[in-house]
Amino acid sequence: MELTVKQIATLLEGEVVGNDLLKVSSLAKIEEGKQGDISFLSNPKYESFLYTTQASAVIVNRSFQPQKPVAPALIFVENSYSAFTQLLEEYHRQISFARIGVEQPAYAGAGTQFGERGYRGAFSYVGCNCQIGTNVKIYPHVYVGDNVQIGDNTIIQPGARILSNCQIGRNCVIHPGAVIGSEGFGFAPQTDGTYKTIPQLGNVILEDYVNVGAGTTIDCATMGSTVIRQGVKLDNLVQIGHNVEIGRDTVVAAQTGIAGSTKIGERCIIGGQVGFAGHLSIANGTKVGAQSGVGKSIKEEGISLNGSTAFLMRDNMRSQAVFRRLPDLERRLDELEKKTEK
Amino acid sequence: MELTVKQIATLLEGEVVGNDLLKVSSLAKIEEGKQGDISFLSNPKYESFLYTTQASAVIVNRSFQPQKPVAPALIFVENSYSAFTQLLEEYHRQISFARIGVEQPAYAGAGTQFGERGYRGAFSYVGCNCQIGTNVKIYPHVYVGDNVQIGDNTIIQPGARILSNCQIGRNCVIHPGAVIGSEGFGFAPQTDGTYKTIPQLGNVILEDYVNVGAGTTIDCATMGSTVIRQGVKLDNLVQIGHNVEIGRDTVVAAQTGIAGSTKIGERCIIGGQVGFAGHLSIANGTKVGAQSGVGKSIKEEGISLNGSTAFLMRDNMRSQAVFRRLPDLERRLDELEKKTEK
Amino acid sequence: MELTVKQIATLLEGEVVGNDLLKVSSLAKIEEGKQGDISFLSNPKYESFLYTTQASAVIVNRSFQPQKPVAPALIFVENSYSAFTQLLEEYHRQISFARIGVEQPAYAGAGTQFGERGYRGAFSYVGCNCQIGTNVKIYPHVYVGDNVQIGDNTIIQPGARILSNCQIGRNCVIHPGAVIGSEGFGFAPQTDGTYKTIPQLGNVILEDYVNVGAGTTIDCATMGSTVIRQGVKLDNLVQIGHNVEIGRDTVVAAQTGIAGSTKIGERCIIGGQVGFAGHLSIANGTKVGAQSGVGKSIKEEGISLNGSTAFLMRDNMRSQAVFRRLPDLERRLDELEKKTEK
Repeated sequence: MELTVKQIATLLEGEVVGNDLLKVSSLAKIEEGKQGDISFLSNPKYESFLYTTQASAVIVNRSFQPQKPVAPALIFVENSYSAFTQLLEEYHRQISFARIGVEQPAYAGAGTQFGERGYRGAFSYVGCNCQIGTNVKIYPHVYVGDNVQIGDNTIIQPGARILSNCQIGRNCVIHPGAVIGSEGFGFAPQTDGTYKTIPQLGNVILEDYVNVGAGTTIDCATMGSTVIRQGVKLDNLVQIGHNVEIGRDTVVAAQTGIAGSTKIGERCIIGGQVGFAGHLSIANGTKVGAQSGVGKSIKEEGISLNGSTAFLMRDNMRSQAVFRRLPDLERRLDELEKKTEK
Repeated sequence: MELTVKQIATLLEGEVVGNDLLKVSSLAKIEEGKQGDISFLSNPKYESFLYTTQASAVIVNRSFQPQKPVAPALIFVENSYSAFTQLLEEYHRQISFARIGVEQPAYAGAGTQFGERGYRGAFSYVGCNCQIGTNVKIYPHVYVGDNVQIGDNTIIQPGARILSNCQIGRNCVIHPGAVIGSEGFGFAPQTDGTYKTIPQLGNVILEDYVNVGAGTTIDCATMGSTVIRQGVKLDNLVQIGHNVEIGRDTVVAAQTGIAGSTKIGERCIIGGQVGFAGHLSIANGTKVGAQSGVGKSIKEEGISLNGSTAFLMRDNMRSQAVFRRLPDLERRLDELEKKTEK
Repeated sequence: MELTVKQIATLLEGEVVGNDLLKVSSLAKIEEGKQGDISFLSNPKYESFLYTTQASAVIVNRSFQPQKPVAPALIFVENSYSAFTQLLEEYHRQISFARIGVEQPAYAGAGTQFGERGYRGAFSYVGCNCQIGTNVKIYPHVYVGDNVQIGDNTIIQPGARILSNCQIGRNCVIHPGAVIGSEGFGFAPQTDGTYKTIPQLGNVILEDYVNVGAGTTIDCATMGSTVIRQGVKLDNLVQIGHNVEIGRDTVVAAQTGIAGSTKIGERCIIGGQVGFAGHLSIANGTKVGAQSGVGKSIKEEGISLNGSTAFLMRDNMRSQAVFRRLPDLERRLDELEKKTEK
């Protein structure tokens, strides 16, 4: 992306003071701006950087009045922060969807159909009888099994793997190395102490606007579907067991694990390195602190949990505080006993 | 797989009531059955679904008597649940081993030998001087280094990586993105505060019937072998350090980590997100609760541990229960002190 | 690598007793030595193995005097342990850098330049406008995006992924399946309960001598850089959030997670499965025990932390000790109350 300051000002409905023919190709913080960058000034705390930055252009609030001479072109807008964010998003969108066409060699099985404006990187593999939507970007080393559906505008980053029969919605992003539809961990103990594999024949369904982090693994259902509802955001290295269901707009931070058949509600916020036991049901709007271990179903909506094993965050923090004083508590108890014995 | 109801009935030694020429191609729960599916009814609680299911056939117990008209064909067998399980396993086996042949491009180094009925997916890489057994399935994007041995009937799922000199037994399943034989984490501190890499020259040995989950990493030994014994099942995103040994039929749930040189016994059951320190020895049949941290060797067989740091599960649960009451305990202690001072 | 005993003795400045024409191709512990192996004897505890080992040669201390007849050739050196280590390192170095050339098919984008003595494995992908240094080894299934710089002598193991705009220093090792430069986990909550993706446009900078473990993920910065300083060693399945900075020679064990914008000091030692909250600043030389959860910045250098949530290791261990006695403490408190009521 290379635009003139004038083009950007038009896009943002702002006015330029300075050289509006300068070309801008990247975005940066004002304290790190280099030639060719555009930056912004919103917080007055950063004003001093305006007079030293190497950035070619800076977006400022309409109300702003420079106190010293300014080198970069200035673009005056109503709200510099949200204008910059708008620019960021446009830039990101353009980069994300820039690639079009097929790099060779790429593999596609019989009966698979690809929508328009797609990209398939070299060494990408798409199996048989898949339906790939419009504007879908399949990066190098991506594996897509048989009978997979992928909705429009979805991006599958390098080396992500989607196994057979899975369904991926529209506007999803699957990050590098993620695995969707691996066989769940099901083994039936036998009388001789060995285990027999329980066949895992279901799939994974991702609805629209789902984000799956790098290295995250989502197991297919034993039968039926593991379901990740619309708008769910999963961070990196998360583990989702077979037959799990995660409700709309729930966010799960890195390295959390959810064991088989647990249902997480909508709009939950789950910290990093949390563990959920299997077969639980977690109410909508539950918040779970990092490293917590959730062993019981939660029925009441909107509560906050913490601890391993987890209970109400408020109570847990009180117990944690006393935990630090435990040696002191024990000493006080010793003394009381001595006193009382007298 | 497409079979008639009659063929399935023959396979299961059952009798058909209804149209035995219907074709069945998939398996489903009775409440989710669609045309072309076969399902089963075992628990009487689900009987009502029998009268509404869209499945083409349902396996029922010989003793069962329908109370209403039934649309699908019925297959009467001694035990409907175990007959369905048998069908599941057969179906799963057929799917797992269906692929035969080599998709192009696939890479194989000099001196490598492949057994019969194998599959190698496009973009799979097998190095030099490997011995690959009969009926081995190597999916796309699999990497196999040099001098690797893989036993008969083993399945290496897409993007799994087996580094040089490793030995994989028969009837193993290596799930997508797993890494076997990566260099262990060994660094010798130097006097200037930097670290020197300790060369890791050993390998990993997986015996027969081992399951390695998606994204799981198993480091090679410094010298000698990291050993995963027969029948061990490792879930997703598990970390196994260098020179670890895991005994027969031990099961390890997701996101657990085992530090270098620790020996885990046979038939242990390890929960998710557990951590083991290095150089421990854990007795046969030990059970470790999820999120526990094991810092000491366990000599007595068959005990259950919990907590971080872990101790006897029974005792840990008692301490956990008091932990919740800690603020109350402290308050009671405060009051006692006041009383006693008087 | 195949050398005669004489060649090795010359390399180690030692003297041979026995057949110095024997050929040696591998290294082993003395108790596991086979024909063609070289081993060492340092600890007198292992002396008995010297008389039974199958190794072709054994390195011993100059001061050592065998008590019985010895089959293998002996190489006498000043310090047998450090001589063996020297041999290990040379062997490892030769194996690591042995591969040279390009296996086909390999993909390289326009404008990318490769240094001399490099290796690119089959199915490796390097994007456009990259600068790849001398003696860089890019294994099969490696993905390198656009505008990436990789310094001399760096090894990128199979299936590692380095996304666009990242900078990798010299003498780094990126282990299999690691992901460097994935988009950070940034989502802005909207008033309707959904989340909007915050574009992540920065990169990751790895300085020299950095080790990134198998399956480890390092997110790019939102803007600017996630920075991993010289000599940092990251174990397997570690998660590094966007805009994190890790100081020189810090070591991070497996499955630890560091949330966005946290700065870790130099020479820290971080255990396995540790979690750091975001936006913290951790002083140089901090030690953090396994499974700890660090929720606050640490200003004092060189302290040791433990627990979730973490506090001073010494204090935490005292509290942990009392935690085990909590049921007893509660009982004692009950009794005191009864006594006092009388």
